[in-house]
Amino acid sequence: MILRDPVHGLVCFEGQAERVVVALLGTREMQRLRRVRQLGLSALVFPGAEHSRFAHALGAAYVMVRLLDRVRAVHDAVAPEHRLDAEAERDAVAAALLHDVGHGPFSHLFEEVMPSARSHEAWTVDVIEDDATEVHAALRAFDAAMPGRVSGLLRGEHRLGWLARAVSGTLDVDRCDYLLRDSHMTGARYGLFDLDWLLRSLRLECTARGEAVLAVEGRKGLPPIEDFFLGRHFMYRQVYHHKATRAAERLLRAIVVRLAELVAEQRAPEPLPVALGRAARAQPVRLDEYLELDDAALQYSVGCWARDASDALLRDLCARLHARRLFKTVPLPPEPEAAPTRARLRERAEREAAALGLRPDLYVSVDVARDVPYAEPTDERPEGVWVAMRHQPLRRLGDCSFVLGELRNKSFEDARLVVPPEVRDAIADEAPTRSG
Amino acid sequence: MILRDPVHGLVCFEGQAERVVVALLGTREMQRLRRVRQLGLSALVFPGAEHSRFAHALGAAYVMVRLLDRVRAVHDAVAPEHRLDAEAERDAVAAALLHDVGHGPFSHLFEEVMPSARSHEAWTVDVIEDDATEVHAALRAFDAAMPGRVSGLLRGEHRLGWLARAVSGTLDVDRCDYLLRDSHMTGARYGLFDLDWLLRSLRLECTARGEAVLAVEGRKGLPPIEDFFLGRHFMYRQVYHHKATRAAERLLRAIVVRLAELVAEQRAPEPLPVALGRAARAQPVRLDEYLELDDAALQYSVGCWARDASDALLRDLCARLHARRLFKTVPLPPEPEAAPTRARLRERAEREAAALGLRPDLYVSVDVARDVPYAEPTDERPEGVWVAMRHQPLRRLGDCSFVLGELRNKSFEDARLVVPPEVRDAIADEAPTRSG
Amino acid sequence: MILRDPVHGLVCFEGQAERVVVALLGTREMQRLRRVRQLGLSALVFPGAEHSRFAHALGAAYVMVRLLDRVRAVHDAVAPEHRLDAEAERDAVAAALLHDVGHGPFSHLFEEVMPSARSHEAWTVDVIEDDATEVHAALRAFDAAMPGRVSGLLRGEHRLGWLARAVSGTLDVDRCDYLLRDSHMTGARYGLFDLDWLLRSLRLECTARGEAVLAVEGRKGLPPIEDFFLGRHFMYRQVYHHKATRAAERLLRAIVVRLAELVAEQRAPEPLPVALGRAARAQPVRLDEYLELDDAALQYSVGCWARDASDALLRDLCARLHARRLFKTVPLPPEPEAAPTRARLRERAEREAAALGLRPDLYVSVDVARDVPYAEPTDERPEGVWVAMRHQPLRRLGDCSFVLGELRNKSFEDARLVVPPEVRDAIADEAPTRSG
Amino acid sequence: MILRDPVHGLVCFEGQAERVVVALLGTREMQRLRRVRQLGLSALVFPGAEHSRFAHALGAAYVMVRLLDRVRAVHDAVAPEHRLDAEAERDAVAAALLHDVGHGPFSHLFEEVMPSARSHEAWTVDVIEDDATEVHAALRAFDAAMPGRVSGLLRGEHRLGWLARAVSGTLDVDRCDYLLRDSHMTGARYGLFDLDWLLRSLRLECTARGEAVLAVEGRKGLPPIEDFFLGRHFMYRQVYHHKATRAAERLLRAIVVRLAELVAEQRAPEPLPVALGRAARAQPVRLDEYLELDDAALQYSVGCWARDASDALLRDLCARLHARRLFKTVPLPPEPEAAPTRARLRERAEREAAALGLRPDLYVSVDVARDVPYAEPTDERPEGVWVAMRHQPLRRLGDCSFVLGELRNKSFEDARLVVPPEVRDAIADEAPTRSG
Repeated sequence: MILRDPVHGLVCFEGQAERVVVALLGTREMQRLRRVRQLGLSALVFPGAEHSRFAHALGAAYVMVRLLDRVRAVHDAVAPEHRLDAEAERDAVAAALLHDVGHGPFSHLFEEVMPSARSHEAWTVDVIEDDATEVHAALRAFDAAMPGRVSGLLRGEHRLGWLARAVSGTLDVDRCDYLLRDSHMTGARYGLFDLDWLLRSLRLECTARGEAVLAVEGRKGLPPIEDFFLGRHFMYRQVYHHKATRAAERLLRAIVVRLAELVAEQRAPEPLPVALGRAARAQPVRLDEYLELDDAALQYSVGCWARDASDALLRDLCARLHARRLFKTVPLPPEPEAAPTRARLRERAEREAAALGLRPDLYVSVDVARDVPYAEPTDERPEGVWVAMRHQPLRRLGDCSFVLGELRNKSFEDARLVVPPEVRDAIADEAPTRSG
Repeated sequence: MILRDPVHGLVCFEGQAERVVVALLGTREMQRLRRVRQLGLSALVFPGAEHSRFAHALGAAYVMVRLLDRVRAVHDAVAPEHRLDAEAERDAVAAALLHDVGHGPFSHLFEEVMPSARSHEAWTVDVIEDDATEVHAALRAFDAAMPGRVSGLLRGEHRLGWLARAVSGTLDVDRCDYLLRDSHMTGARYGLFDLDWLLRSLRLECTARGEAVLAVEGRKGLPPIEDFFLGRHFMYRQVYHHKATRAAERLLRAIVVRLAELVAEQRAPEPLPVALGRAARAQPVRLDEYLELDDAALQYSVGCWARDASDALLRDLCARLHARRLFKTVPLPPEPEAAPTRARLRERAEREAAALGLRPDLYVSVDVARDVPYAEPTDERPEGVWVAMRHQPLRRLGDCSFVLGELRNKSFEDARLVVPPEVRDAIADEAPTRSG
Repeated sequence: MILRDPVHGLVCFEGQAERVVVALLGTREMQRLRRVRQLGLSALVFPGAEHSRFAHALGAAYVMVRLLDRVRAVHDAVAPEHRLDAEAERDAVAAALLHDVGHGPFSHLFEEVMPSARSHEAWTVDVIEDDATEVHAALRAFDAAMPGRVSGLLRGEHRLGWLARAVSGTLDVDRCDYLLRDSHMTGARYGLFDLDWLLRSLRLECTARGEAVLAVEGRKGLPPIEDFFLGRHFMYRQVYHHKATRAAERLLRAIVVRLAELVAEQRAPEPLPVALGRAARAQPVRLDEYLELDDAALQYSVGCWARDASDALLRDLCARLHARRLFKTVPLPPEPEAAPTRARLRERAEREAAALGLRPDLYVSVDVARDVPYAEPTDERPEGVWVAMRHQPLRRLGDCSFVLGELRNKSFEDARLVVPPEVRDAIADEAPTRSG
Repeated sequence: MILRDPVHGLVCFEGQAERVVVALLGTREMQRLRRVRQLGLSALVFPGAEHSRFAHALGAAYVMVRLLDRVRAVHDAVAPEHRLDAEAERDAVAAALLHDVGHGPFSHLFEEVMPSARSHEAWTVDVIEDDATEVHAALRAFDAAMPGRVSGLLRGEHRLGWLARAVSGTLDVDRCDYLLRDSHMTGARYGLFDLDWLLRSLRLECTARGEAVLAVEGRKGLPPIEDFFLGRHFMYRQVYHHKATRAAERLLRAIVVRLAELVAEQRAPEPLPVALGRAARAQPVRLDEYLELDDAALQYSVGCWARDASDALLRDLCARLHARRLFKTVPLPPEPEAAPTRARLRERAEREAAALGLRPDLYVSVDVARDVPYAEPTDERPEGVWVAMRHQPLRRLGDCSFVLGELRNKSFEDARLVVPPEVRDAIADEAPTRSG
């Protein structure tokens, strides 16, 4: 199978291991990802960022194919038990393709807001292990143990620890694709690191404790990996934590909270996707019900509720989101010194909201975005990024990179008060001015 | 307003005329375009092609801004009555932004299939002229005659004929943006002509008949414009007329036909967007009902029908589309010689479909895709592309370009039989083989 | 060996066959190509076009490596005697790297102007076959017959005819790299076809006459190959045949003519590279003397002559070139109708030059640039581009491509009178105006 | 004037101020920059990096044009005496174009090695102020005081201090162009920051001390400027300080040292550019002599000396450089702890060199490359980069950027022993291994 991709160009899945890609793409559960956007509400801020998790899943699988090509060329450096074989390769490509298959619409919202909701990772495991899914059948057609191995890989359990970390770790194929894809599609471009060079710089080596790890080769490999972490940080600050996106997420969260209240009060609006209804009642959601949820279902419902819901509060919240009349943000000064200022501002905003007839708990909130640009374990665990200098023991990346060494394990925080525009205007006398 | 865009990079709307962009973007009708994909079902073939008409509308408006910048620098070459003024500039930017505002979901499908449906151009004019829309209000806030002038521009009626043709003509801002955007997003890249150079090569000149036209400057301007037309042709062949996309469109068309039958028989499935129901009954559709239709509404409905429709035929068609189990194509030999072959093949396919219990009129069709890579009027009309050589009268592009001269007004045709996979297999003994 | 390249990105020569690249790059004769620009005087018009034949040679070798990767994956389609083996692969990479090793400075000038000069192809063969060169030694170190086989490949003689045509033919690795590289470096971009897709579309197939040929696969392969030929045509018109470059070449030609006269008159200027002196005297030039000629030698000499030559005519010509005071061009109308006009203009220019004290044969000339965008044999020879449709006999590209079919074997011509600026001014009353 | 450029695309110099570009480009001194490579010997390591200072000068002038466009749109924020006027704009464009006009061949080598040599900055001022140059005449044709003002700008003296810093400062047009250009041409890409966004983010503001400075706008402007400094650091580490380039520079330095000795001993080789001879004798060099020196002169001379010099030492050094048989590097551990190790290794290498008949002072050296990724004044000087947050006083970039704050004024150092390959082999038992 050959595909065109705006990020990777010509994408080929033609090797033995890649047959699993063709098999999985034909499943209903993978096709559903076409209807789940990768960046959720970010398209409201970056109009180009309308790409789906389907495109991202393909990209992640393709990065995995390329990673395996590289590892196969260099894995003789480690003992045979750490090396790839045909089974491990197929498992890895499948895991990369399926890593988000349990994702709900609009990013992590569903699992964060709904009472007793399960994580998307748990749903992903279900899609793979539940023998009613087409994904499960497609995997089992290769071999009966494959669903179990693939879901193991996604949970970090596999005989090849380094491979599990390449599926999900500090430097994994998921991040490799999403940094490139989101950079490309938003137009923000900060995450455009040099994937070719990075892959070509990888080696498979053993740590002092005898664990096989992917390691970056010598000095040549440092720049793309430094770019990778710095690019990730810049993407967090400029895109993932963009104030308008965060504000839109608060709005959607308020909608879901109100929805749950209405369901509890037997006043559920129409249409109501089954899974939403059950979740709102804290009832268990069946997998097939969960998978009916996608962006289309939510967008369509929000559109209907904005017009037709009997509850004025739900109508108002939905109408704001549907026509992109978002909440606004007020930057908050850093903790801990400014804790009293933050608290005072929040209370003031809540009072003003109430005065305007807006429920403070739904219309006023504090959003704190945090990022650690480069996290590195301080002990001997195999996690994290290693660097291989010729004839020397492996070293931590932070000990080799001048820039990342300085940033290691340092944390960055950005806090904002999120309120409707009319509340922001009401507190303008006191709020710190917008800063950019 | 500044935006990031994957195609144009940094997009600024900061001039006087561009204030209308900010005003229009806040309207419900423009925001709706976020929920209508630019390429409809093409994303089923090119997974990156998930961009919306909203992103395209912004792009077209931005190309217009740049075109106006260029024209303003050179319009002294024509008499004052042909020149830009502030009003014409604002009208033009608004028209570029709004040119697709009446588009229904999934490309031109809605208007092609529904009995008595109106064209998307007619709906666009309605959105602008109906005083109940937010778009109308936003335009009227500039001046009372603006809605009329903008819809006039979109219908080709304006005191500046060349400006109307830049909104909609052989070489217009719509095409400029969509060639670049679709090339970029599909990854096919064939339409990536040099917009910077093309714009820089434009002049405003008068034809022998005294009409002001945009003309390409001398020899320097030929390559980007040749690229533009050749790129357009390649995009048609590789993307817009891609066999799998065309097959998907046939499937969706069959769904809509069956839906109309069910509605007529009082067996309408649930949910049924109001506009679909009315259209299926050949009743007039109100503008607000029409605007409720978007990709989300259609995707959600198709998903529900695939699971729950009582009609097995509708269920089958919807399930195929929802899980991307598309029809297949069989290339047909060229007319007129092969007319009997075509007819025989079609009949054979219809017989086989019937034998498989599939209604031939819904499951078998012939699709003919045509393109004229470079069309040029043969008379003195101002339409078409002109070339300005220094100190010489304007000439037609086809008289100056070696390549386009050879292709002028020649037509290319591609015909296929479109059938379900099981029918294709049944006629494999006789069908011409797949050719690529 | 891994390299960075502005055109191909990461360039790796790491396979078995590529060991020859490392061996050859260390030779004096390959290193000399760093001092020969790929586009000669074009940098006077496109300031970015300063790349050397060394960079191009690496690029051509890299395209060959990728081509061989592709062929190896598909060559089972032909009988074993047409397939690659390790020897043929190494030969092919060496031939691609060495294809220009005998190139003199400033493009083909040297061989066009010097009395009795040999072609650069002949010099290339000498560099490979002369046992005094480091290139010869490097090849012989692989095996004694390798120099002969490699020079055979470059002359079109090899047991694998298709491989010889991939070294030098309608669609060869030389053209593939130079179209991309020159497009990139000039910034003109017209030749940026999709190399990835083109390579991926290649097959090795047999013609009806039983000859193995590289063929483009079905419909998918057409667009990149159409782009390749159209891009090449546009590059010819905009870059290779750019009027200012052609005018600069005429100036350099006049310098060499005058130099030869002075040498014949025993008035040779200083410094005079040995090879130039011998060639001017129509004496045989030794290979080592020839190889001393590079851009540096010619630029340095022209700079010295511009300041210090005793001959005023040589001084004037050199000073014009050294400080980029180029000749100008006047477009000439097309033959045959305009033959009298052309002759009259030329005579007028010669009279005016003479009146200004400028020797007409050195200062006035007619330059005719011709291009056939797509040439295709009309008989059964294996040359040219073939297309493989599934289950059908191979067809000529011109029979499959709508656009190239229309252009097939049609010729484009551009004629100009080339004169010093002062002569152009003198004939301005009569000369057709500049057209671009 | 319109140009194509591989870095900036379409480059237009069409405004009033840009007339000076056209005038200066016609001068002999600017045309000479076509024969001086921007990156000197780096092309030996990055084959694409063959671009000249001429292309860079055009790029820097173009960045200045765009910077002035931006400033003109926002300079009403400062008092009139800090604003642009037509004269300042023309001066600035001229200064940007001319900033390297006095550069000698092969980077800073000439001025570093030659006894009593003057800096290239001093020669630049001479080219502008000496009334025998064409540059001087071209400037004086605008107005008599223009040469003085332009050379003042280049020395940091101008009534608009911020403009002088934009010509030469922490964030100047020279750096903006060379980071992009060198990234592009080497293919290393680390310096590809977002120039569009950076320019769009600039404001002209006053510091607390009342000095006008260019400032980056709020949070939006941080990422491109962070990218700029990080990209610069990575380019230093990967390109400008690449071990093989540094080794090649050591080789060229040894050639020049030996040349000076031979000249002093009256044994000067042929050919000997006049300026080299004078400089080697510590005699004053005339401007016209200096300007005869370019890459062609040096390359041609080195080629001749490699073949014909009577001094075996000079022949050997030149032959190594001409055929790219470079010195090798051995990484040295960090000071101060490792000072004894460094000294011991150097002495060992010198002994081995002597034993091989190689003069230690010419064949053995220690190279220390240093970089401060982000330097920031610690006092109130206007130098450095400022950030403008709405309604707040200007702040230093290091106080606003999380990443640059951590790196501020920290220094990175890389030391290597540089020796011929045969010496490296001789000390392999003791030398720290290569690290990448």
